[in-house]
Amino acid sequence: MAGNTFGEVFKITTFGESHGVSVGVIVDGVTPGVEINEAYIQKQMDRRKPGQSSVTTPRKEYDVVHIQSGVFEGKTTGTPLFVVLQNHDMRPEAYSEIQNAFRPGHADFTYLEKYGIRDHRGSGRASGRETAARVAGGAIARKLLERRGVQVVAYTQEIGGIKCESFDEGVIEQNAVRACDPIAADKMIKKIEGLAEIGDSCGGIVECRIRGVIPGLGEPVFDKLDAELAKAMLSIGAVKGIEFGAGFEAATMLGSEHNDARNSDGFLTNHSGGIIGGISTGQEIVFRISVKPTSSISVPQQTTNIKGEEQEIRTEGRHDPCICPRIVPVVEAMACLVLEDQYKRQAAMLG
Amino acid sequence: MAGNTFGEVFKITTFGESHGVSVGVIVDGVTPGVEINEAYIQKQMDRRKPGQSSVTTPRKEYDVVHIQSGVFEGKTTGTPLFVVLQNHDMRPEAYSEIQNAFRPGHADFTYLEKYGIRDHRGSGRASGRETAARVAGGAIARKLLERRGVQVVAYTQEIGGIKCESFDEGVIEQNAVRACDPIAADKMIKKIEGLAEIGDSCGGIVECRIRGVIPGLGEPVFDKLDAELAKAMLSIGAVKGIEFGAGFEAATMLGSEHNDARNSDGFLTNHSGGIIGGISTGQEIVFRISVKPTSSISVPQQTTNIKGEEQEIRTEGRHDPCICPRIVPVVEAMACLVLEDQYKRQAAMLG
Amino acid sequence: MAGNTFGEVFKITTFGESHGVSVGVIVDGVTPGVEINEAYIQKQMDRRKPGQSSVTTPRKEYDVVHIQSGVFEGKTTGTPLFVVLQNHDMRPEAYSEIQNAFRPGHADFTYLEKYGIRDHRGSGRASGRETAARVAGGAIARKLLERRGVQVVAYTQEIGGIKCESFDEGVIEQNAVRACDPIAADKMIKKIEGLAEIGDSCGGIVECRIRGVIPGLGEPVFDKLDAELAKAMLSIGAVKGIEFGAGFEAATMLGSEHNDARNSDGFLTNHSGGIIGGISTGQEIVFRISVKPTSSISVPQQTTNIKGEEQEIRTEGRHDPCICPRIVPVVEAMACLVLEDQYKRQAAMLG
Amino acid sequence: MAGNTFGEVFKITTFGESHGVSVGVIVDGVTPGVEINEAYIQKQMDRRKPGQSSVTTPRKEYDVVHIQSGVFEGKTTGTPLFVVLQNHDMRPEAYSEIQNAFRPGHADFTYLEKYGIRDHRGSGRASGRETAARVAGGAIARKLLERRGVQVVAYTQEIGGIKCESFDEGVIEQNAVRACDPIAADKMIKKIEGLAEIGDSCGGIVECRIRGVIPGLGEPVFDKLDAELAKAMLSIGAVKGIEFGAGFEAATMLGSEHNDARNSDGFLTNHSGGIIGGISTGQEIVFRISVKPTSSISVPQQTTNIKGEEQEIRTEGRHDPCICPRIVPVVEAMACLVLEDQYKRQAAMLG
Repeated sequence: MAGNTFGEVFKITTFGESHGVSVGVIVDGVTPGVEINEAYIQKQMDRRKPGQSSVTTPRKEYDVVHIQSGVFEGKTTGTPLFVVLQNHDMRPEAYSEIQNAFRPGHADFTYLEKYGIRDHRGSGRASGRETAARVAGGAIARKLLERRGVQVVAYTQEIGGIKCESFDEGVIEQNAVRACDPIAADKMIKKIEGLAEIGDSCGGIVECRIRGVIPGLGEPVFDKLDAELAKAMLSIGAVKGIEFGAGFEAATMLGSEHNDARNSDGFLTNHSGGIIGGISTGQEIVFRISVKPTSSISVPQQTTNIKGEEQEIRTEGRHDPCICPRIVPVVEAMACLVLEDQYKRQAAMLG
Repeated sequence: MAGNTFGEVFKITTFGESHGVSVGVIVDGVTPGVEINEAYIQKQMDRRKPGQSSVTTPRKEYDVVHIQSGVFEGKTTGTPLFVVLQNHDMRPEAYSEIQNAFRPGHADFTYLEKYGIRDHRGSGRASGRETAARVAGGAIARKLLERRGVQVVAYTQEIGGIKCESFDEGVIEQNAVRACDPIAADKMIKKIEGLAEIGDSCGGIVECRIRGVIPGLGEPVFDKLDAELAKAMLSIGAVKGIEFGAGFEAATMLGSEHNDARNSDGFLTNHSGGIIGGISTGQEIVFRISVKPTSSISVPQQTTNIKGEEQEIRTEGRHDPCICPRIVPVVEAMACLVLEDQYKRQAAMLG
Repeated sequence: MAGNTFGEVFKITTFGESHGVSVGVIVDGVTPGVEINEAYIQKQMDRRKPGQSSVTTPRKEYDVVHIQSGVFEGKTTGTPLFVVLQNHDMRPEAYSEIQNAFRPGHADFTYLEKYGIRDHRGSGRASGRETAARVAGGAIARKLLERRGVQVVAYTQEIGGIKCESFDEGVIEQNAVRACDPIAADKMIKKIEGLAEIGDSCGGIVECRIRGVIPGLGEPVFDKLDAELAKAMLSIGAVKGIEFGAGFEAATMLGSEHNDARNSDGFLTNHSGGIIGGISTGQEIVFRISVKPTSSISVPQQTTNIKGEEQEIRTEGRHDPCICPRIVPVVEAMACLVLEDQYKRQAAMLG
Repeated sequence: MAGNTFGEVFKITTFGESHGVSVGVIVDGVTPGVEINEAYIQKQMDRRKPGQSSVTTPRKEYDVVHIQSGVFEGKTTGTPLFVVLQNHDMRPEAYSEIQNAFRPGHADFTYLEKYGIRDHRGSGRASGRETAARVAGGAIARKLLERRGVQVVAYTQEIGGIKCESFDEGVIEQNAVRACDPIAADKMIKKIEGLAEIGDSCGGIVECRIRGVIPGLGEPVFDKLDAELAKAMLSIGAVKGIEFGAGFEAATMLGSEHNDARNSDGFLTNHSGGIIGGISTGQEIVFRISVKPTSSISVPQQTTNIKGEEQEIRTEGRHDPCICPRIVPVVEAMACLVLEDQYKRQAAMLG
């Protein structure tokens, strides 16, 4: 209800603020008897963590994974897994200036309107820090999906107007922006470094491809597979849009162009993005998300404070000039959570 | 779980197939003591019904609204409202040819993969007919929102590549395509009529504006207001994408451009689309959806049958060459359902 | 949230008031491909209906079952089943006198306090009529459970202080009170007939035995199998208590007496009632419920009206002097709903 | 779904095994702006902890409460509260002998049947240790209920056949068994000490009284207030039955006796236990639960091991010979969780 739980059968419940003691996750509905390796989760945490390169914030979060329940002698028991991540390198004093002013693009104003009270250290619960718990939970889902032969890969497709022209999955984790085209990646990095110098930021587009999903996955009316993925992606702070397959392009196509014909080998095209009627076709599932430019910039901006007075603000601190590279593992984590949940829902329906 | 219920507090549960006996909805969590007028719901049903003009299917559905429970002496009692809509003008024989073949762009294949069984009359549960129940439920939500001063207006912004150049809310219900620009509307109608002649179809873009929402609405992590709206919209059959505010455009903007500055009168721009951190800002909420071209076309297409054999198919029958005009009231209904639910969730949180 | 839905995976949502147009149920999460026979559901409806004998109310409800969705060519499709039951033999005028007075033992007062508005015809949503929808939904669950080899049998064990001394399952449906002992049944019937003459009523105890459940069913912490059954039973209007296995007797036993020892053939006793730690042992599941005397009696009683004024009231109308015989199929229906749901939850966990 | 979450609006999600690293709870849906004092929660934790007297297990759990999120400058922020409790004094070696044998009365057998894997240290997730997280979460609910003027008091009414003959609320926390009658308390303590000497255990009855609840609380059909309380109580490990008001006694009463008449001052009796039609009457809510004798006894018992071989077992270790005194705060915690949730559901309905 209050929205800190995600999923129906396989589900995660998270807690924690940016500058509180810790963030963490309870993962419930885990298949019993599955080997879980902390290093496996750690690998995903490390992909999300800040300070990986020149294009990410230098804030340090170590996020050493330790499973506190739900695993016995290396295997899941079917009871809830709990992973807590201690917060480090908190500098609440860096935020004293924003105690009373609303940073443009931030949720400062909306949180105060909603709750009548606001944890102004960092962004409290609205911080990107919150996604650390998602990645930990998503890693468990990813582990279960591997046993099903499902692979989830996200990557940067565009940053600051620079688009990838080629797709090479092998290069994604080899460049600092997680782009699928190494030449575009170099340009993106230069673009970001330039913006960092002047204290500005930029947005981009992240694409996700999911392979190995059985045909027939997804609930057909309100909980369509694409509807659940859309919710999952829009629940990530900076995401402003999503499209599946031909997406917004579909609006300009004819039915005779868009419909995916079939022959005895299967579908001939994939304009649907692997989902028809909310149910997987067995093809690759493809979607793209629009990521807004990071709200925290040191360029002076006009705003108001909690008394309604006008003032100028510069959001100092350690921030990513472009969040795309670090949003990639979060996108994958959320996609994994949706898919594992839908697999279990399918099992429930047939069971 | 099986996904025929939408909402947490204010919620609807629907049933019914295209060519079954009836479709209907149970609306639960209704505020007691509210005057409900059947004519009010009927008005929304009539906006969705087929056969309204030359650009929609001639299939007749009368959809006479009758509330069977939850209302006593003209007022809601707090117990579930039930509205059932009888199906008329069913011609199952028109569908006999598709009994064994998968229509491209349709959910025939995916339903069979999911359930191992398929109601091949019309599109069964995957039919647009299912949205009638949503509109009935959405009308109740709309009634409750009116008391809160909330207005939800959707309209066609683009069809077949023709875009609205102006915005006049007064003309939307005056033209057959529900466009916000009467000149573009005329072009859209001609475009659709031309496609109808050759048995093809086209897609478009529908925009929705929501006014009068309090600041502070929406749950901040997984159930963000935009996340719930995205799920709601992607749960509508033909929708392939959604974007809020600047949307995909945000991907190319700088932080200093995208951030909505404030002065003592409030926000100066609305790139966020009225939602920041998943919570309403009090500004107009704006989103756009991509609607794919109608799958049912009589242009010959290549497909396979349930035995895997290749064949050609022409989807005869009475279909909308462009679904945008009739999707408009469905978009509004789903938006109303999300908003009323979030208002009640807010009341629960504070209560 | 508003509590008109029961179950997590296999779930029912009901609507309808005693003297409204209809009552009905949407059953969601049904396994596809299962043969469903309307006569099968009808049989359960007939067991619940009034007017079966001298000891039940003469009110007539025909409750002819007609499935309106979710079944195609005799088999479930996996989409929601809808069953509606029209109300007949409504005599709202019989209730005009209770429009303003609170009948003792009835929910008149509490509904008005909750909602600020009350449908005073019959008991509105608080009427036993509401259970008709449960029995229809429960019949679907029973059908699915039959395929699993699970049998659910409830029966009257005590009425008006008269206890069954023997257990013969074959006689239960052969006597008007559904008692498991034919000699006690005769005494119970006489007792009820005597009370009917003087306009009074009595309570009783109903026992339920469930056989064929696999060991390992039930969720271990909050959603224990006995916890879910307890909720299901206490959700039936007249039920005031429940006990499993040794039940309240367990409070007086020693651990060495109560613990169910095992040998190589399995458990030696069943004090636990077939559930330990919230999970089924594979033994017979046994519970008993306490049923209060029917609230509607024509004996004069002291009460107040909606203005707070004192008055005497005699609840005229057609009521069961003892509800036990007709609560038996409702108990079975609710138990079936819990069990089928838990089976599907188990499938989800393992799937 | 997997049942480690309780509540709809105000809800807790728990994790942790008896001999794992920690147990803990995420509390979601907390009203913002409420002063929360760790000492307040600690007080409830201390009432539940072992080692309080001669009649409880000497196992030490310090359970020092530390809130890790959701509170800022002493007030709730509306975001999830997280409380973790480290496990201490674990002696897994004490459990090596039960690794392969099923302890009678314990969930060893059922967990293994359910999951195919079992954490045999202590009772894993089935341990009473799990209730520590409930008490922490319940304390938050209690705090919110205090502001509503609601008081929840539970106490021992009967142990080992010894019944309280008087009711003095002031003595409950003054005696080691939390009985409401000091004379009976002395006898109960002697009874328990005697059983401890011979390694046996006994059961009892705990009663709960709730005051200050508004009339009109509770959802009327499946989520009746008594139904939710019944589920909550039966979800506590050792509870085998529950009854409200007249309870099982109601089965032997006439309608003219059981119905609670009213005069202008309100209800004249409270046979209903403060709930009619699933909704509170505004009277005291009264229910009783049956607590089975502790399963862990050192008296030799017959059982089988995981290979199906017969063997004798004596459950050594540090256990409570009667769990009633320590179940009292758990009963209160669960009742508080149900009530706060229902208050918030009521706010949602009206909101």
